[in-house]
Amino acid sequence: MSQVMQKNQQVKMVRHGEFLSTAASLIPKTHSKVLQPKSVINVVADSLAVHGWRSELVDDAASFLKQAFQPGDSFILDFGTHGVGWLTFCCDSAGSPPDAPAHLRFTFGETLCEVAEPFSSYQGWLSSSWLQQHDEYIDLLPSTTTLSRRYCCRYLKVDVIALSPKYQILMNNMTFTTVSSAPESCLPFKTHDPALQKIDEVSVLTLRNCMQEVFEDGPKRDRRLWLGDLRLQALVNDVTFAQHDLVRRCLYLFAGHRREDGMVSASIFVKPDIIADDTFLFDYSLFFIDVLHNYLLATNDVSTAKELWPVALRQVELALNRCDHIGLVNDCDDWWSFIDWHDDLNKQGPSQGVLIYCIEKAIELAKICQPKLCDQLQNQLNRHKLAANELWDNELGFYVSGKQRQVSCATQIWMVLADVGDLAHQKKIMENLLLFPPAIGMNTPYLRHHFIAALLKTGLRMQAVEEIKAYWGKMVEYGADTFWELFDPERPDFSPYGSKIINSYCHAWSCTPAWFIRQYGL
Amino acid sequence: MSQVMQKNQQVKMVRHGEFLSTAASLIPKTHSKVLQPKSVINVVADSLAVHGWRSELVDDAASFLKQAFQPGDSFILDFGTHGVGWLTFCCDSAGSPPDAPAHLRFTFGETLCEVAEPFSSYQGWLSSSWLQQHDEYIDLLPSTTTLSRRYCCRYLKVDVIALSPKYQILMNNMTFTTVSSAPESCLPFKTHDPALQKIDEVSVLTLRNCMQEVFEDGPKRDRRLWLGDLRLQALVNDVTFAQHDLVRRCLYLFAGHRREDGMVSASIFVKPDIIADDTFLFDYSLFFIDVLHNYLLATNDVSTAKELWPVALRQVELALNRCDHIGLVNDCDDWWSFIDWHDDLNKQGPSQGVLIYCIEKAIELAKICQPKLCDQLQNQLNRHKLAANELWDNELGFYVSGKQRQVSCATQIWMVLADVGDLAHQKKIMENLLLFPPAIGMNTPYLRHHFIAALLKTGLRMQAVEEIKAYWGKMVEYGADTFWELFDPERPDFSPYGSKIINSYCHAWSCTPAWFIRQYGL
Repeated sequence: MSQVMQKNQQVKMVRHGEFLSTAASLIPKTHSKVLQPKSVINVVADSLAVHGWRSELVDDAASFLKQAFQPGDSFILDFGTHGVGWLTFCCDSAGSPPDAPAHLRFTFGETLCEVAEPFSSYQGWLSSSWLQQHDEYIDLLPSTTTLSRRYCCRYLKVDVIALSPKYQILMNNMTFTTVSSAPESCLPFKTHDPALQKIDEVSVLTLRNCMQEVFEDGPKRDRRLWLGDLRLQALVNDVTFAQHDLVRRCLYLFAGHRREDGMVSASIFVKPDIIADDTFLFDYSLFFIDVLHNYLLATNDVSTAKELWPVALRQVELALNRCDHIGLVNDCDDWWSFIDWHDDLNKQGPSQGVLIYCIEKAIELAKICQPKLCDQLQNQLNRHKLAANELWDNELGFYVSGKQRQVSCATQIWMVLADVGDLAHQKKIMENLLLFPPAIGMNTPYLRHHFIAALLKTGLRMQAVEEIKAYWGKMVEYGADTFWELFDPERPDFSPYGSKIINSYCHAWSCTPAWFIRQYGL
Repeated sequence: MSQVMQKNQQVKMVRHGEFLSTAASLIPKTHSKVLQPKSVINVVADSLAVHGWRSELVDDAASFLKQAFQPGDSFILDFGTHGVGWLTFCCDSAGSPPDAPAHLRFTFGETLCEVAEPFSSYQGWLSSSWLQQHDEYIDLLPSTTTLSRRYCCRYLKVDVIALSPKYQILMNNMTFTTVSSAPESCLPFKTHDPALQKIDEVSVLTLRNCMQEVFEDGPKRDRRLWLGDLRLQALVNDVTFAQHDLVRRCLYLFAGHRREDGMVSASIFVKPDIIADDTFLFDYSLFFIDVLHNYLLATNDVSTAKELWPVALRQVELALNRCDHIGLVNDCDDWWSFIDWHDDLNKQGPSQGVLIYCIEKAIELAKICQPKLCDQLQNQLNRHKLAANELWDNELGFYVSGKQRQVSCATQIWMVLADVGDLAHQKKIMENLLLFPPAIGMNTPYLRHHFIAALLKTGLRMQAVEEIKAYWGKMVEYGADTFWELFDPERPDFSPYGSKIINSYCHAWSCTPAWFIRQYGL
């Protein structure tokens, strides 16, 4: 997920101390690994390469870093893989005693474009403070410095900005200590399809690098817990690292700071204090139910399910307030529901699907936590499914959304996932979607995930594999070490933020192929 | 003093552990004081103001800092006086929870020009790493940050580079913790001349802010111990803070790491290790004798004098090696002797003066430390004084220097200080100097000091006071809180480094008016 959607600072929030204590007791331990730079590269403009840049090997890093550098020198280190962590470098001087500070600039890139294009030219609308750069002034040499911020990179550009004419600088010991709350290895998985094997591998690294003190959405940007991302991360975690306590921690975090009416926020900040963001999204809040249900399935931890059940149930109640007299979700034009990063997407149809989908999960939870509520919830489910039929356009063969009766991929996908209509009907919709893709398509890997899920739900297994390969496989072809926040194979430079260098290139909601591949044995 | 003069990295250096241990035992304690910003100012271009800038009051700092700031906001704080120390600031957010790091830029200025002129346009030849700037990226809010480097400023410019649209930033607690190894107050001094009183005050602050773990030349740049500066600082220290142990420490530092032939370096680095610079200057090395002699006079610490006497004597012996058969210092074109920052200055004449001056001090030390050497040293003294007469040009009424028989202020000044000729002769020279100033004038406050000393030595007390007021008094008029490294009343923008923003504006060698005023009761 990302940022800047709502400003609701007047909303009253309530803290739930016991939930927050439980969350605090579940802070995971950190697994560290020290990476050495592998090689030194040049970036070369190449209109055929993704983002317009390709790399060219200059030297292996160990040999290259034996030299003494002077002002104006600049080089790009390649650590060989994507990592999240802390940079440490030892500097010494060559020549006369250093009689002026050394001014070095470090630029961190998940991808080549971030070390190739100057940050000074950034004109996007997300804060430039996310661009990973640091100027270090070293007063004492020799010295060892660990930069105080965590960075996220595969590439590191070093610019020697200023020394004095009396000395040169040596930087022969540069390490990047990567961190994750997931261990280095996960549940093994083998497939005979090398493309899927590689996609699985990249998915797993994406998830691992997002697993820190919480499931972060992107370790470069925004570095925080979003409910929509958590839901997908938890799925992949189930079949890879199985760090269920981290999912549990995140559930308690969302439960621990809520709007006074009980609504869970879309996102949580954990430092310096636990604070729920003032962004509230219809779909994200409902997904609390799904994450809790999935956690229960994975762990059989009934006590947690029961403790958090009232929070989950409250999300259903609040969502129902947004429905009209027949049970159709009211339409609205702002950021009330996420679904996809798409300016023109009408959210009513897909949100109807999300509501139904989540009531179904609520029923499953109620069976364990509050069985006498099952009938009432089942009635709700039936009512909202029935209402969904109002959105069906028989002539088009698609569901429509909003007053303008918009046909979008998102609406079809969510109606299928909500299990509206019988399986034949659902399969037909998905086949139509493949044959006649609506103008309002899919912008994010997040919606792509639901697309694949709907294909698999309707038995379109081969098509699902094809789509995974065409989409995530294309990122692998482009050299992705981790899956990207945003990717459109037709427009690989696309950024909803106005600049590709601010995009996150290791993003939680893109890590789900590993779940499909492993869960469905693709 | 300053930098980039010699590169002699091949020179073999010798460490003297006992001397270094003594130096280490004398590390002074630090006196801290927390400054609050007094006001917020604008800088306004003004061709009549020094450096082309004047300040305009915007608001008092406490009121101004109550507001929340957004990207693009920029303001200049005025701490009301010059200080050396550490910046601490507390930041908090206003609005929604901060969902992106805050990127702030801090620019420290001893003078207005440093906060008015962008560092990016700096084209001088000293390292731009001396320009005092720091970019801070704050990931967590609220938070308290103390920048890790020591800065030197009266003015602090704060630029809010980037936040997110969801929040603003508060910076309502900003402090600058100043440090010095001198206490806050010094020996009191009162004169009825308010101009001299103010000059004394500025001198004392200049000295105090240079007094750190050693006597630094400039706390902004180069932040280290130079022998030539130490000599002047020790004089002023005698009549103000009387921190004689700091002088003693510095003497042991110079004695502790020397060239293998025993020559003391012009400058010492103290961190991370004690290392003598590979710059060696004829005059600076000789001044070790003068500093030791002056220390003995101030403290009567015979044991230190005796322990360091061999080091002092060695400087005489090495200097004599640079003399010809009649005892005249050999001329040379490079940075072998400092005297003044002046590209065209021939150093032979003034260096002859320095040699004689220092042999005289050596004789005084020998009387205590090695009396049987006195006669031999006296013979040397006579010989070199006699040789100095070779440089006298009766027709010009001035001493000349070098093959080109250059007439410079420096030569006259040093011949007078060396006590060459009788007092009437010396006085005549100084009068000539005032009436017919040679084309090769005085560039630094450092040479000005010797000029004033020569005026006072020859009884030209009124003229000395006039010159002090015309020179240091002019800096005070220009608003100096501390005296500048470089100042030419005719060209107040002058920098030998190609840019006034790299000049040091609190510089040890400029602090000596307090000594003249107090020692001579001006």
